[in-house]
Amino acid sequence: MTADTVDTSVEDFSETGGFAAVTNAVRGRVDELLARFLDERRPPVGDPDVAEGYRLLREFVVGGGKRIRPLLCYWGWRGAGGEEPYDDRAVITGAALELYHAGLLIHDDVMDGSELRRGRPSIHKGLAGASRWAGAETFGRSAAILLGVLAQAWADELLAEATTGDVRGRAARELFNRMRTEVVTGQYLDILAHTRMDADVEQALTVIRYKTARYTVERPLQIGGALAGASPELLEAYSRFGLPLGEAFQLRDDVLGVFGDPAVTGKPVLDDLREGKRTVLMAYAYARARGPERERLRAWHGAPGLDERGAAEIRQIIVDTGALGEVEDLIALRAGQAIEALRDRAIAPEAARALAALTERLTRRVR
Amino acid sequence: MTADTVDTSVEDFSETGGFAAVTNAVRGRVDELLARFLDERRPPVGDPDVAEGYRLLREFVVGGGKRIRPLLCYWGWRGAGGEEPYDDRAVITGAALELYHAGLLIHDDVMDGSELRRGRPSIHKGLAGASRWAGAETFGRSAAILLGVLAQAWADELLAEATTGDVRGRAARELFNRMRTEVVTGQYLDILAHTRMDADVEQALTVIRYKTARYTVERPLQIGGALAGASPELLEAYSRFGLPLGEAFQLRDDVLGVFGDPAVTGKPVLDDLREGKRTVLMAYAYARARGPERERLRAWHGAPGLDERGAAEIRQIIVDTGALGEVEDLIALRAGQAIEALRDRAIAPEAARALAALTERLTRRVR
Repeated sequence: MTADTVDTSVEDFSETGGFAAVTNAVRGRVDELLARFLDERRPPVGDPDVAEGYRLLREFVVGGGKRIRPLLCYWGWRGAGGEEPYDDRAVITGAALELYHAGLLIHDDVMDGSELRRGRPSIHKGLAGASRWAGAETFGRSAAILLGVLAQAWADELLAEATTGDVRGRAARELFNRMRTEVVTGQYLDILAHTRMDADVEQALTVIRYKTARYTVERPLQIGGALAGASPELLEAYSRFGLPLGEAFQLRDDVLGVFGDPAVTGKPVLDDLREGKRTVLMAYAYARARGPERERLRAWHGAPGLDERGAAEIRQIIVDTGALGEVEDLIALRAGQAIEALRDRAIAPEAARALAALTERLTRRVR
Repeated sequence: MTADTVDTSVEDFSETGGFAAVTNAVRGRVDELLARFLDERRPPVGDPDVAEGYRLLREFVVGGGKRIRPLLCYWGWRGAGGEEPYDDRAVITGAALELYHAGLLIHDDVMDGSELRRGRPSIHKGLAGASRWAGAETFGRSAAILLGVLAQAWADELLAEATTGDVRGRAARELFNRMRTEVVTGQYLDILAHTRMDADVEQALTVIRYKTARYTVERPLQIGGALAGASPELLEAYSRFGLPLGEAFQLRDDVLGVFGDPAVTGKPVLDDLREGKRTVLMAYAYARARGPERERLRAWHGAPGLDERGAAEIRQIIVDTGALGEVEDLIALRAGQAIEALRDRAIAPEAARALAALTERLTRRVR
């Protein structure tokens, strides 16, 4: 079977018919499950402001997100022979991944000082805004740290509902544990990169591998697969598909962070640049810029006072040095490798088609 | 059986013979287990600074702490009929509680901006100090958030080693889950208290109940008990013992935070006051201070520039208003209630004796 014979044409599959319907159904079940689960978490103390914190967390989890990880978990399960309507475990596990991710994003925004997330105030910002006290910002950050911790603890509880009691569940849990250590370590490497001189392409790619490729794609797929008793060969195939797709996905994200339309991405387009995010895109720009261009990059990248004019200058340098072209080429290369990996016969054909459609969506998206 | 007949004399039991020997043995096993477990966690990326972060976390966990929760977990297990040398589950679970607690303390220090912990630089401070970069403080805080999250994720993995596979383990896990939600919610209420006018005795007592009484005493005892198949009656008895002891323990901590000897406590004595910690002690002082005394409290309590002279003034007000006396009375009352609760026949006699000795230690300690 070649990539062509698994019928990866997006037009046929992703916009209409089976894939879109299943995708929407999975999203709906995950959302419903998360809403119900969070509604059941009542604060142990009767304080209106504590209740408000719980409510904010619920809104954050239920009110947004592309549900990429639950979808990958679901298709990983289907690809390993998981069949509807026998059990809900892949959906519950997907919801747990989403809840874990919410906690991670809340912390991420605290660490980065990001003011917006999903087009709305980030949790720490929202909490700070609600208070008129002088220490409002400190309160917002601390409360967000706690709510992030709470989300991750609850993710654990939700995951246990799907993974307790048998060998498959234990295998899934084991992969989940690995994933947690990997993503936190990837984030650690990411903040370390900020303390180092300039950006380095190799290092930025390592960060991507752990923070995104494994965390967002490979592990969710494998976790879903493990729930359906995936063979080691299938888990390997998921890895060969997931790592390049995850890399391409993050590279697209980095491009959108600089060149995207904030009205579509829901994210202020100056944030990544102001924050001095050490992306692969910027690493290429640094590596290729010479003389005054390099000086301009150093001056503007990571400058809290960066304005639209400075951002336009950086964008121009990224284009002129060929960094953007390099990254677009890399995205296309990795997307191709991912599609190629789907030829593996270990992956059930229907799942392979869905994953091919997802690959298109995730690497060509505009938000 | 009365409290007297269970032989609660500290002299006989806590300093020599059975209790001290068992206490030391349990501490030793917990420490050994934590060291081994953490040595096995290898960073998934080969970066020396990531390895250094892992090492710092290991030192923090292994290098200090009174191991109160593991001891309570152990005695909760023994009190429910758990017998040596049949299994290690109470010790493994105790180690998991300690690892979870390390994560919580790391986050606590970030939230409070505390510079010292256990007589050494707090994790975020240590990490900031290691970097010469301009953003060192931001790096330290972010890295500490991540290491705290990592410690809590690993605590989960360690706990699973002791709680997977049977009804008792599930009961223990269920209590652990409740404990996590309770303590995080208690912390949330605590930081909310900072945003509110003055301190309020009732609110401060609620914070203590969740942040300490349940978290430090009641739940560890019950978790240990559950591992040995404790009856609902025994779990209730642990609650009747644990809640007053936990309250007394925290009240003692608050008194030491203002009146303790930093050379003994390992904690700068001005921290609690500078931070404006809303303790029960301070709430009593606020409630009783009038006119200029109240003004002085408001001016100094929570002032970043508080010096030894200002602290001496606050201490004097705490003594003069009778707030200190009130808290000492409350500690004695709660310690008595805890001892009284140990008369319950559901608790195995040897464990009751050990818990009585622990009560003395935790409420009369100087550090």
